[in-house]
Amino acid sequence: MKAVYLDNNATTRVDPAAVAAMLPFFTEQFGNASSMHAFGSEVGGAVLKGRRQLQALLGAQFDHEIVFTGGGTESDNTAILSALETQGARNEIVTSAVEHPAVLALCAWLEKSRGIKVHYIGVDARGRLDVEAYRKALSPRTAIASIMWANNETGTIFPVEMLAELAHEAGALFHTDAVQAVGKIPMNLKETAIDMLSLSGHKLHAPKGIGALYVRRGVRLRPLIRGGHQERGRRAGTENAPGIVALGVAAELAQQHINDENTRVRAMRDRLEQGLLQRIGNSFVAGDVENRLPNTANVAFEYIEGEAILLLMNKAGIAASSGSACTSGSLEPSHVLRAMKVPYTAAHGAIRFSFSRENTDEDVDHVLEVMPGIIARLREMSPFWDGKNAGQSGFAPTYA
Amino acid sequence: MKAVYLDNNATTRVDPAAVAAMLPFFTEQFGNASSMHAFGSEVGGAVLKGRRQLQALLGAQFDHEIVFTGGGTESDNTAILSALETQGARNEIVTSAVEHPAVLALCAWLEKSRGIKVHYIGVDARGRLDVEAYRKALSPRTAIASIMWANNETGTIFPVEMLAELAHEAGALFHTDAVQAVGKIPMNLKETAIDMLSLSGHKLHAPKGIGALYVRRGVRLRPLIRGGHQERGRRAGTENAPGIVALGVAAELAQQHINDENTRVRAMRDRLEQGLLQRIGNSFVAGDVENRLPNTANVAFEYIEGEAILLLMNKAGIAASSGSACTSGSLEPSHVLRAMKVPYTAAHGAIRFSFSRENTDEDVDHVLEVMPGIIARLREMSPFWDGKNAGQSGFAPTYA
Ligand SMILES: Cc1ncc(COP(=O)(O)O)c(C=O)c1O
Ligand SMILES: Cc1ncc(COP(=O)(O)O)c(C=O)c1O
Repeated sequence: MKAVYLDNNATTRVDPAAVAAMLPFFTEQFGNASSMHAFGSEVGGAVLKGRRQLQALLGAQFDHEIVFTGGGTESDNTAILSALETQGARNEIVTSAVEHPAVLALCAWLEKSRGIKVHYIGVDARGRLDVEAYRKALSPRTAIASIMWANNETGTIFPVEMLAELAHEAGALFHTDAVQAVGKIPMNLKETAIDMLSLSGHKLHAPKGIGALYVRRGVRLRPLIRGGHQERGRRAGTENAPGIVALGVAAELAQQHINDENTRVRAMRDRLEQGLLQRIGNSFVAGDVENRLPNTANVAFEYIEGEAILLLMNKAGIAASSGSACTSGSLEPSHVLRAMKVPYTAAHGAIRFSFSRENTDEDVDHVLEVMPGIIARLREMSPFWDGKNAGQSGFAPTYA
Repeated sequence: MKAVYLDNNATTRVDPAAVAAMLPFFTEQFGNASSMHAFGSEVGGAVLKGRRQLQALLGAQFDHEIVFTGGGTESDNTAILSALETQGARNEIVTSAVEHPAVLALCAWLEKSRGIKVHYIGVDARGRLDVEAYRKALSPRTAIASIMWANNETGTIFPVEMLAELAHEAGALFHTDAVQAVGKIPMNLKETAIDMLSLSGHKLHAPKGIGALYVRRGVRLRPLIRGGHQERGRRAGTENAPGIVALGVAAELAQQHINDENTRVRAMRDRLEQGLLQRIGNSFVAGDVENRLPNTANVAFEYIEGEAILLLMNKAGIAASSGSACTSGSLEPSHVLRAMKVPYTAAHGAIRFSFSRENTDEDVDHVLEVMPGIIARLREMSPFWDGKNAGQSGFAPTYA
């Protein structure tokens, strides 16, 4: 059976070119990048190259604005905790209700254990940020505003350039969790007011266990992990040289494919989405259809359970996701769809299809072929579905 | 020219078997271990296997006592910061003066920024901990005692089992930085009172970017990195499945080779050490010669500079280290040798040779052949060496 992988927002296949590039750093150039001898200094050069490749993808002005970390979550935690230390008396956080747990779980803990005031800015039914509420929440007490570049569940893109400027007007730092955006949409950080940006290698065809935090020159960073002088004292621990090399190559590949992402990948996504909506009643797209990542389609199938859908899809060889992988296993509908006020009958049946450049038209064909049967079968068994609801979605019209 | 790598305490070559085991997890089983579908659940199984392999090496009682992290530094930081949160009113730290910067830099920051009281227990001329001072420093105010299992520069082994019991008598947690000890000496954690233990993959022939923190069942852990529910909520972030798989294989290999480590590796180390002392005057071994890691030899060559020695060794194809890699580039003698009160004239010329199972007798021959010439040449140029000092080491006799 053909396997169709449409869960690229959860994680991606490492590009074989990235694997090939990293391999020598396990068994040949395996030295410690900080060492004096030949084994080490070669590795130091490779780390610098990786840093510059990532700099290029982000459009950062200086290579030393890149701090390598162990992943997106570590980057997010570092940025927010740092701001609370470096911003003097400012001790409030402005964020959104639809951030990833890497931001929200940290904020919840800061509220509970340190009494930090966190403003969670809401979104509308399409997942768009309430910019007026954001503006009002910013104040001389704001240490940092942290708003994701693109949402992992719906793909909705936030106007981070503008949000960064508003944060600066209030004297606050601006951080963006760009884990889902990097490599999918073009960036030119040096032209923006963004102070810090998080990314994670495994979301752009680099391996798991490597990520980065962009820190604009002049922005003070308080390290989360202290020890040796690696990363200019901003992130201690022996450099993950193979991971950095692979991330560098993946960044270069992402840059080369970024047009492809916005033409071919987008076209596949759109064909899937339109095809599903045409074939399956009482379904609609969640998220801002006009301003979304090109690779993400979140389709809500009313009156059935996402986990059950995934199970049958899995049997048909299709991998996708309901909500984010981190929260799967729980039966609560996703916090993102709840923030959008998607009715429970629909939120429970939301499936995220996320593409990458490795997907093909055949993948789309296969999904379009099997999904109508899966949904029909589950609706037959659903206590909420009695045929009478057919065509009566109370929510879909918003997106008509 | 033959390259001789004797810097295994800085980092090791990844074992080809570990590389082979991890490879499929980049491009085939690349799913997110937390995902519901087939791509993910296979990976979840591999992560569990790696956890159990590591459990076996450590002699831990339960596999869930292993928390995977991004490396040794992260593990050390997590353990110490956690104890300060979970130990109620207890807010003091007891540690040693010879810890790795992953502990010392964190402690220095905690003193400075949070006013935490840190007791730095000294060592004697052989690098042995002052156990009496340790005992006295423990009190009802101690949150955690953190003492390394083995020192990275001299290989000196600390009596951590006993130190852990003393900490428990005072009601404190005990953590050990075992980054240099794991895989080199046998361990059976379930028979000890050790509460937490740090290790780092790349020190035992696994890749960089993966490490672990052992947390005894029942010991509360406050995560350093918050977000998703990975590692039972103790370390958020997508699991580094390839790294975990490789660390698991490396752990199994280390267990198979642990006798070799203590016979063949130790014999090579001893032959190198004795050979150097015989051939080169005014040199001596730093550290506790009776209780050391089998792979480490720290030899001080008086009246010359370690960095200059390394440079000439490098030209002869030999990689070693002066002090720890993290602090190289600085001209201060190592804090470990300073704590041992090794005179500056000797501490500056200390070279750490660190073996692994991959070294050979030919490596030892090569080093013994070239070192006398290197040392003689540098002494000729040294302003401190006038031939008159020959044989007059004021320090070496301690080790006679
Ligand atoms: C004793 C000790 N602790 C901690 C570390 C830090 O490990 P890592 O660099 O993998 O974070 C090292 C190695 O550099 C070490 O030798
Ligand atoms: C938007 C967003 N932020 C942060 C993360 C966390 O990244 P990682 O799991 O690599 O730490 C993810 C992915 O899980 C994500 O989608």
